[in-house]
Parts: sequence; C-alpha cells; structure tokens
Amino acid sequence: MRYRGAQWFLTGVRRYSTSNDRNIGFLGLGNMGGFMAANLVKKGFKVRGYDPSAEAMKKADKNGVIGANSVAEAIDGADVVISMLPDDKVVLETYLGKDGVIERTRKGALLIESSTVAPTLPRQLFPLALEKGKRFTDSPVSGGVMGAERGALAIMSGGHKEDFERALPIFKAMSTNQFYCGDIGTGIIAKLTNNLILFINSLAATECLNMGISAGIDPKLLLNIINSSTGRSWFTEEYCPVPGLIPTAPSSRDYKNGFNNDLMVKDLELACSMALNVRSPVPLGVLTAQVYRIMQILGYGQKDFTYLYQIMRGEASKHKN
Amino acid sequence: MRYRGAQWFLTGVRRYSTSNDRNIGFLGLGNMGGFMAANLVKKGFKVRGYDPSAEAMKKADKNGVIGANSVAEAIDGADVVISMLPDDKVVLETYLGKDGVIERTRKGALLIESSTVAPTLPRQLFPLALEKGKRFTDSPVSGGVMGAERGALAIMSGGHKEDFERALPIFKAMSTNQFYCGDIGTGIIAKLTNNLILFINSLAATECLNMGISAGIDPKLLLNIINSSTGRSWFTEEYCPVPGLIPTAPSSRDYKNGFNNDLMVKDLELACSMALNVRSPVPLGVLTAQVYRIMQILGYGQKDFTYLYQIMRGEASKHKN
Amino acid sequence: MRYRGAQWFLTGVRRYSTSNDRNIGFLGLGNMGGFMAANLVKKGFKVRGYDPSAEAMKKADKNGVIGANSVAEAIDGADVVISMLPDDKVVLETYLGKDGVIERTRKGALLIESSTVAPTLPRQLFPLALEKGKRFTDSPVSGGVMGAERGALAIMSGGHKEDFERALPIFKAMSTNQFYCGDIGTGIIAKLTNNLILFINSLAATECLNMGISAGIDPKLLLNIINSSTGRSWFTEEYCPVPGLIPTAPSSRDYKNGFNNDLMVKDLELACSMALNVRSPVPLGVLTAQVYRIMQILGYGQKDFTYLYQIMRGEASKHKN
Amino acid sequence: MRYRGAQWFLTGVRRYSTSNDRNIGFLGLGNMGGFMAANLVKKGFKVRGYDPSAEAMKKADKNGVIGANSVAEAIDGADVVISMLPDDKVVLETYLGKDGVIERTRKGALLIESSTVAPTLPRQLFPLALEKGKRFTDSPVSGGVMGAERGALAIMSGGHKEDFERALPIFKAMSTNQFYCGDIGTGIIAKLTNNLILFINSLAATECLNMGISAGIDPKLLLNIINSSTGRSWFTEEYCPVPGLIPTAPSSRDYKNGFNNDLMVKDLELACSMALNVRSPVPLGVLTAQVYRIMQILGYGQKDFTYLYQIMRGEASKHKN
Repeated sequence: MRYRGAQWFLTGVRRYSTSNDRNIGFLGLGNMGGFMAANLVKKGFKVRGYDPSAEAMKKADKNGVIGANSVAEAIDGADVVISMLPDDKVVLETYLGKDGVIERTRKGALLIESSTVAPTLPRQLFPLALEKGKRFTDSPVSGGVMGAERGALAIMSGGHKEDFERALPIFKAMSTNQFYCGDIGTGIIAKLTNNLILFINSLAATECLNMGISAGIDPKLLLNIINSSTGRSWFTEEYCPVPGLIPTAPSSRDYKNGFNNDLMVKDLELACSMALNVRSPVPLGVLTAQVYRIMQILGYGQKDFTYLYQIMRGEASKHKN
Repeated sequence: MRYRGAQWFLTGVRRYSTSNDRNIGFLGLGNMGGFMAANLVKKGFKVRGYDPSAEAMKKADKNGVIGANSVAEAIDGADVVISMLPDDKVVLETYLGKDGVIERTRKGALLIESSTVAPTLPRQLFPLALEKGKRFTDSPVSGGVMGAERGALAIMSGGHKEDFERALPIFKAMSTNQFYCGDIGTGIIAKLTNNLILFINSLAATECLNMGISAGIDPKLLLNIINSSTGRSWFTEEYCPVPGLIPTAPSSRDYKNGFNNDLMVKDLELACSMALNVRSPVPLGVLTAQVYRIMQILGYGQKDFTYLYQIMRGEASKHKN
Repeated sequence: MRYRGAQWFLTGVRRYSTSNDRNIGFLGLGNMGGFMAANLVKKGFKVRGYDPSAEAMKKADKNGVIGANSVAEAIDGADVVISMLPDDKVVLETYLGKDGVIERTRKGALLIESSTVAPTLPRQLFPLALEKGKRFTDSPVSGGVMGAERGALAIMSGGHKEDFERALPIFKAMSTNQFYCGDIGTGIIAKLTNNLILFINSLAATECLNMGISAGIDPKLLLNIINSSTGRSWFTEEYCPVPGLIPTAPSSRDYKNGFNNDLMVKDLELACSMALNVRSPVPLGVLTAQVYRIMQILGYGQKDFTYLYQIMRGEASKHKN
Repeated sequence: MRYRGAQWFLTGVRRYSTSNDRNIGFLGLGNMGGFMAANLVKKGFKVRGYDPSAEAMKKADKNGVIGANSVAEAIDGADVVISMLPDDKVVLETYLGKDGVIERTRKGALLIESSTVAPTLPRQLFPLALEKGKRFTDSPVSGGVMGAERGALAIMSGGHKEDFERALPIFKAMSTNQFYCGDIGTGIIAKLTNNLILFINSLAATECLNMGISAGIDPKLLLNIINSSTGRSWFTEEYCPVPGLIPTAPSSRDYKNGFNNDLMVKDLELACSMALNVRSPVPLGVLTAQVYRIMQILGYGQKDFTYLYQIMRGEASKHKN
C-alpha cells in the first residue's frame, strides 16, 4: 500500500477503516458547513476548520471545531478534507492555488468536495488529485440548513466506489441518506437534477396556488386538497409559499432564514448549463431559471425564493424593507 | 321546510336524509362513470344509467346498473342525477336541450355535475336549475380510472353546503376524500388547479429524469434519490415516465391504459382559460399546455401522457404503431 | 330592395355609393377614436360623436365633431356608425343594450365595429344586425395613436365584401392600407395575429438588446448592426426600447405617450384566448403574455410596454413615479 | 518585416496597406467558406485553401482557389489567414494543435477567425496569438449561404481597431456591411445577439401564421397584412415558413438548401450559453432554443429550420423522406 505503509498491510485491517480517518480538515464553515462540522465533532471526529469569516470561526469554535488560521493549517495532517465552498472559482483556487488542497494534503488523504459546482469541475480536479496520490470524490448534499443542523442531509457521491465506502462513516455523521451515484461528477449531476425538479415544482405550486386563490378558493382548503391529491409534492407538503399554512416554512416568518433567491438562482443556472452540455431539452427548467432570475433583478435576492408568491400577487412592495 | 312541505317537517326525518336518495340516474358510463356507477350499485343504490355507447351499456349491465334507452328514461323519477360527460358541449345539451335534465327531473332532485368543464358552465346552469326547483352542484372527481374502480376518488364540490351534505352518502360510495370548496364553480376550479400542478410536476420530472439519465446517472438510482429528497412528488412516486421503475405505472405497460394525452390537453386548456379569466400569471402552466399540445399534434393523443419521455429521448418512432 | 326602397332601384345608382354615406355616428372618442373622427371631418364627412369623457368631447369639438349627449343622439339618422370602444363588455352594451346600436339605427345603416375585441363578439353581433336590416363589419385598426393622428392606419375588415367596398371611402379617410380579410370576425383575427407577432418581436429585441449590451456591445452600434441584418423588424426600426436611439420612440421620452402596458396585455390576452379556441400552439405568444402580465402586476401598467427594458436591467425603480 | 521595417517607415506608406496583404490562407471551404474564398479570388487575392472534404476542394479549385493538402500548406507564407470552421473544437485544434495557426504562421500575419463559436474562444486565442507576434480578430459573418455567394455578407469584428482597418479590403471583397464592434469577442457577441433575435422572430412568425391560418385567414393575405404592418420583420419579408408565398425561400423548395435546423440549434445554444454567462434573462431565447432542439430530436435536423411550420400543422410526416 503506497500511501498507508506496510504496518497497515500486516495487521490485515480493512483498507480505509473508519478508525483511520479521525482527523478532518473542514473548509468553509458557513450556514451549511458550520452545522456539518459541528455534527462531525459530536460523533467524535477531530475537526480542524477554516473560514475567512471571523463570525463563522467564532461559531465553529463554540461547536468544538478547532480553529485554523488558513486553509493550509486546516488541512495539514488531515486524513480527510471536506470542502463546502460558495462557488466554482473559490473551489478552483482552494484546490489548485498556491498551497492548494491537491498539492499540500498528505498522500492517501481523501478529498470530499461537497460544494455545489458545475459537474465539469470535479471531473477536472479528479485526475489531478489521483496523480498526486490523493483520493477525490464529489459529494454534494441536499436538505438545506435545517437538514444540516439535524444531521439529516442526503449526500450524493461520485468517484471511485471504494472512496465512497471509506467516506461512509463520515457521511453518516452528517446525513440520513447516502447515495453512490457512479463516476466522478455524478454526485453533483444527481443533486442538480433533484434541485431542478424541486424548483420547477415550487414555481408550479406558487403560480397555481395564486391562480386558485384568485379564482375564489380558500388558501388553506386548496393546499389541503392538493396535499390529499395528485398535485402534492415535497414542496407543497413542507414549503408552501402562502404565509401561515405551514408554520415551519419561511413564508410563515416573513420569508426569512430560508433558501435565498440568490443561492437558488446559482443552482438553477448550474443545472441549465448542464442541460446545455448534455443537449437535453428542459423547457420548464429554463423558464423557471428565467423567472427566478427576474425576481433577483427586481431586488429580492436575499429573500427566501418562495417570496415570488408575493410578487405574483402584486404585494411585493408591502413586504419590501 | 321550504321546498318539501310541512308533512316532511312533522315526521322529523332529516332533510334529504340518505334514505330519501335511493334512486340515481347516471349519465355517462365511460371509463370513469362506469366504475362510479358500479360502486353505487355495490353500496345499495338503485342506479339507472345511460350512455350512447352500446359497449358501455353492456358493461354497466354486468355491474348491476339498470339500462335506460335515453337520458329521459335514466332520469325520470330519480332523486339524484349524476353526470360524467365528455365536454362542455355535451353537458350543455344534456342539461338544457329538449327533455333536458334541468327541465325534466322532478322538483327537489339533486343534480350532481361531475364532468370536467369550464368553471363558467356550472355557474350558468346553477341559477336555471334553482329556478326550476332543482338543486345543483359541480362535483368533479380526481384520482383517475384506477381511483374510480377502487372507489378511491377525491371529490371536490361547489354550490350550497346543504346540497354537499345531502350528497355525502353518495360521494362516500365512490370516493375516499370529499371536499366542500364553496360557491358554485369552486369544485371545478379546485380540480383544475390541482391538475395543473400535477401536469407541470409531470413535465418537470420527465425533462429532468431525461437530463439526469443523459448525463450518466442510472435511472433507478436517480428516481430513488429524487423520491428520498426534495424533488419528490405524487407523480415521481406513483407515475414515473421511465418504463420499468414503477410496475403499476402506464410507462411500464407500453404507455397504455393510463390518462391519455388527448384528455390531459383538454384539462390543461381548461385550466389555461381559467387563468386567463382570473388574469393570473401561470408561466409554467401555459408552457406545459403548449408542450403536451404539440405532443398531440405529433400524433400521440391516444398514448398515456407520460409517453412524452420517449419523444424527448428521440425514441418515439420505435414505440409508434 | 328591402332597405333602400324601389326608388333607388329605378335610378340605377350603385347600391351604397359613397355619396349616400355622409352622416357618421362615432362612438368612442379616446386616443384613437378622437383622431379618426377628426380625419373624417377633414375629408368632408359630417360626424356626430359621443364619449362619456367630458375631456374627450371637448377635444372632439375643437376638431369639428358635432357633440352628442348620448349614444342615441350620436347614431340617430346616421348612414354609418363607427365604434371604437375599450372592451367586449362596452361593445356588447352599446350594440345590444337599451337603445342599442343594432336596434336604434335606421334600416340599411352600416355598422363598423373597430374596437379590439374577441373574434367571437362580431360573430355574435353580425346575424343580429342583419336580422334587423342593418349591415355589420368588424374593422379593427393597426398603427397606434400616431397612425390615427396622421390618417395612416391599416384597417383589417371582415364581413360581406360589398360592405367593405361601401366602407372604403370612409376607411380611406382614416388609413393608408385597407384589407378585406373574409368572413365576419376575420378582421379582428388578422389584427390580433399581427399584434401577437409584434409583441413577441418586441420582447425578443428587448431581451436580446439587454443581453448584447450587458455582454459589452455599444447600444447604438448593436441596434445599427441588427437593423442592417437579419434580426431587424418593424419594432427594432421604429420602436426600440433603449432610450435615445430612436428619437420618436416612447423610450426616448421617458416611456410616456406610447402604447401602454395595460392595453397591450389586453391584446395579448385576446390573442391567447383565440389561440386556445383554434387549438394552435403559440409557445412564444403565451410566454410573452405572461411576461408583460407580470410587468403589469409589478405596477407598470400605465408605462409604455417597452419600459420592460428598464425592469430587465434592474433600473425600474429609478424611473418609477 | 514587410510592414514593420524602416523601409515602410521611410516611404510613409500607411501601415497595413491593402497592397501588402495579397496572400490569403483559407481554412474551411464549406457552404459559406467556399463562396467567401471564391469572392476573394474574384477580387484579385491569391487564395490558398484547405478543407478535409475532397468535394469541397474540387469545387474550390473550379473557383480559382489554389488547393493545399493540409492546414500547414495553406497558411505557410500567408499574409492573412481566414478560418471558417464548424465548431469550437475544430477551431481550437486548428489554432493550438501541432502545426497550429498561431505557432506556424509568420510574424505579423493577420488571423481572421470567422467561425461561429463561443465568445470565450477568441478571448482565449487572442493573447496567445499576440504573444507570438501575430494579429488576431474574431470576425463572424451574417447573411447565409446566399449572402456568401453574392458577396453580400455582414461582418462583425472584434479585436484591435487597427487590425479591423487592415482587414477592411479583404472584408469588402466578401461583404456589403462591416462593423467594428470593440474588444476581442464582441464580433461573435454581436452576431449571436442578432441571430437570437432572428430565430425568435422566426418562431413568432411561424406560430402566429399557423394560428391565423387555422383561424380562417388566407395565408397570402395574412403575410401581406403583416408585411404592411407592425408585425413585419426581415424573417417575414425574406424567409416565410409557408410554402409558395416567397419564391426564393427554402419553404418554397421543400425546405431544402436553407439554413438547417442542426446549425441553427448550435447557434441558439451558443447564444443561451452566453446569456447564462452574462446573467441576462432571455425568456423567449431559451424557449426558442428548446423548441428547435425538440425539432432536432424529432429527426428533422437536416431540414431548413422553417420546416417547424409543417410540424406545427401536424403535416410533418407527409414531407418526411
């Protein structure tokens, strides 16, 4: 075994056993990453984390994450690196830049890239990582901030199956569902596909609830009918855009602390780019991206994406600050 | 009691109690109506039915429905008339034409119009029926042929609430969910709203499954991920367009015996007309209607609507007969 | 000759000669109708006009239109009635209501209905008018307020060809192009078809100019390239949404005094209803209607429709009020 | 250095004068490139051309183009290289591969890249060319095969202005309009923008003509009305999709020898990618791309793009071979 040494070989212990991966370097401790790192700490992993935001670092410290002053400090000596970063550009810099993850991590380290990026990005990093003797997997998550907090995410993972199996104990500390999706890049493809369906379903419910209510049906009754019938979806059951019908939904707290329109548009645009690349027609997908992009241009990027309901009712100004 | 006379009042029997409504005239014994009438017979109602199709009449006879040779023969003496007819035009003729339901039924008869029509139609018939001393409700159903067969429909009903209550024992013989939606026309509005969401969700899942599969994810795995995640809907759980994934779905039996594209387009166009009338923006709704209308123009009107998946994959010709 | 008498027959004068139609009753003296009536006066017709707006009546008076205090007063004794009314409802009341045009006009009068309405409306009025011995034609106009002012409209007319020919001298006083389109209703069909193309072309140019400019091309250069190339249209040549490029366009005068979004949406919705009726797929048409409907919901109904350009650039607030 | 040395300086001749650029290497002699090269020959340029297709080479030979057996042979000693290649991949290989244009051409050579590619591609090649002492410009063309044949193209060019001026005599030999658009990449941006408008206008006219004709208007009359009114565009005047109305249009020759759907979809997808990159909403643009992509999936990629009209009328099978 090139990168684990003879000692490991002799003991006959299964390659990449859980016990070997105790030290985790965590890059990106934002809304999602912060909770994910905290859950790893709770399950007994030693997590060294880095984020450029002082506030994020402070919060992570409270949750038992060991603070690092740089990417380099967070990943030195780590068995596993998890990155949860804002976009393609930051991921590229973090992995390929000076003191980048691919170069600096120790041989045999498992690199888990969980950011939501274009599928082409993990496909570009994968061979470079392997060439340097590291393992690499794209493993984005689904389930939102609430799922991250509760350790109830779904993780979709692409790359070598043995690396997925190695990562499983770590994944299980943060999630309730783990899917091995196939070759490198398929994790992010699966995630973008699921999200595109979700966002179309959300616009469907938003425009149709508005129509039905405008046509004279009581909102609560209408949602009840839909959720007992063929129109129901995760979105109508958990995330209704009409205030007051689902107490835990962002619409019931003035559209705050949800999944904001800016982030959603990023996901939608990644999905549309992917569709262009595989030359798949997604008529509703592209139209949904346009509608939420226009919402962003109108100045509502920081509102939960379900705020579109208020815009469609002509009530947007009343809520704007 | 205003319209039944003092005699009824003295006996203390509840107005329109179940026991009074035993004789049902059933108009339209097609795929849906045939099973609905059969379920009424099973629950002990005396059902006299009429349909212009000899085959439908023969099937109804086997199910214990008493055959009538005309609309007039079916409704004479009926306490309740249920109509399940193909479109607005037939409903208009049946209710307002020579020997029409509104004129010919006995005073106090309850007219349950269950066809899928424009919301304006029940609103037009309602006052005419009341003027003649009849009761009228729009009570369309949801749940498809399979729901009709199993007595597991949902019924959405508009009109006077007392008429909804009177109809409840009859509704319960055919359905598992019954909703009183409000004023006349709201039953059909609720149904069209639910169906529009369903059909948008169906196109969403169809185009996105195709995209994800084209991008390299295994179909079964992808559906599994979606149904464990935020992209799930009634459609992805019960009615997947990819053959072989859901054994009971039409896609798993060469797209036969489902809800055909012709009927779906009718529903979509009714919903879009309603949206125009209430001036509600439904961007995904109108686009969905366009896409399935083009499927119809391409010659696939008699296939289950999920056959669109094969068209999108460029495999349509292989399935065409 | 039922409605001209034997005398006419004997003289051998061509039926409906120009010289017979000197007295015109004009209903609706708004932006369009006001200029049309004024042009008829200029060409020597005697025009008696009515509009519920005092301001419109005052303006008409200055242009030589004889003021009437009611519809009845305007049409009594008229050879020809022209109506230019805001919507289907007003047209219905004006023609079929108490003292309505169809009942009250003299036998043989030519009724020219020029309002933009659903094609079903003239088809409904036509036989009623003929039954009462009147002539009826749907003759909507195209060319905007500027065209109306200059007498440079296009008129598209449906009904009996002999009535079109009778109306020609009147049409020529108000327009530069006159088209006989066929049976009753085809005038309005032709107009709605032309307008739907125009409004799609307008959104096409608006979104693409915005894209090209965002991508770094100089606005004036880009419009110049388009107008020298295959992308040009009447809209890009005459009505560009970018301020300052075409001096006569509403965009160059703060989007005022153009064709306002409210009126445009009405036309779009009539066209989409027609498309639903003839079951013709118009994917860009329905989407265009949705986009401009949303503009209206956002509160810009009174701005020229090209103001959408500012909304798309995220500059809407700067122009509002 | 013919145009950089002292000799040039002393004579005071304007830098890059026409007389210096007589030897042209032409890469890609297909439908467009073949005619462009022929026009250069006619205007007295010495053109050495290469194309992998034997048929293309034969045709070029007839037109006076000197045949080369490879890219290298075509460009050796050339003052100017023009490339008219099928897609991004071929352009990349031709410019950057072994014996690529950027490496092999002589210092000072002007490289005119006229293929329709992503705007990012010329931006990538530009600095590499300059580093090697070459000049580089993106100069795509508009006007179709007919425009290429007649020397009546429009050329949109990005890069250094002095290079545009140097190229002008060459451009004028092939085109009637030449536009300097700005920095490198703006030529292709301008072209894609114009084409996106064109293709939306084309779908607009196609769906609306179909609607108007379905609603009962004579096709010739309807086109005539549109072309006299506000709905007109280059597309309705020159390229109508209804057979027989415009004799020179592909629709009048069984949709052959036009701009085929495959090529059009490539342009549409490039434009949509660009819109995603600059984050500009193009709702009609993305929908148009989806509709023509579906046409391609249906198997009509080799037909002129206006064949969509037949598909929309449900007449596609009658024309299919």
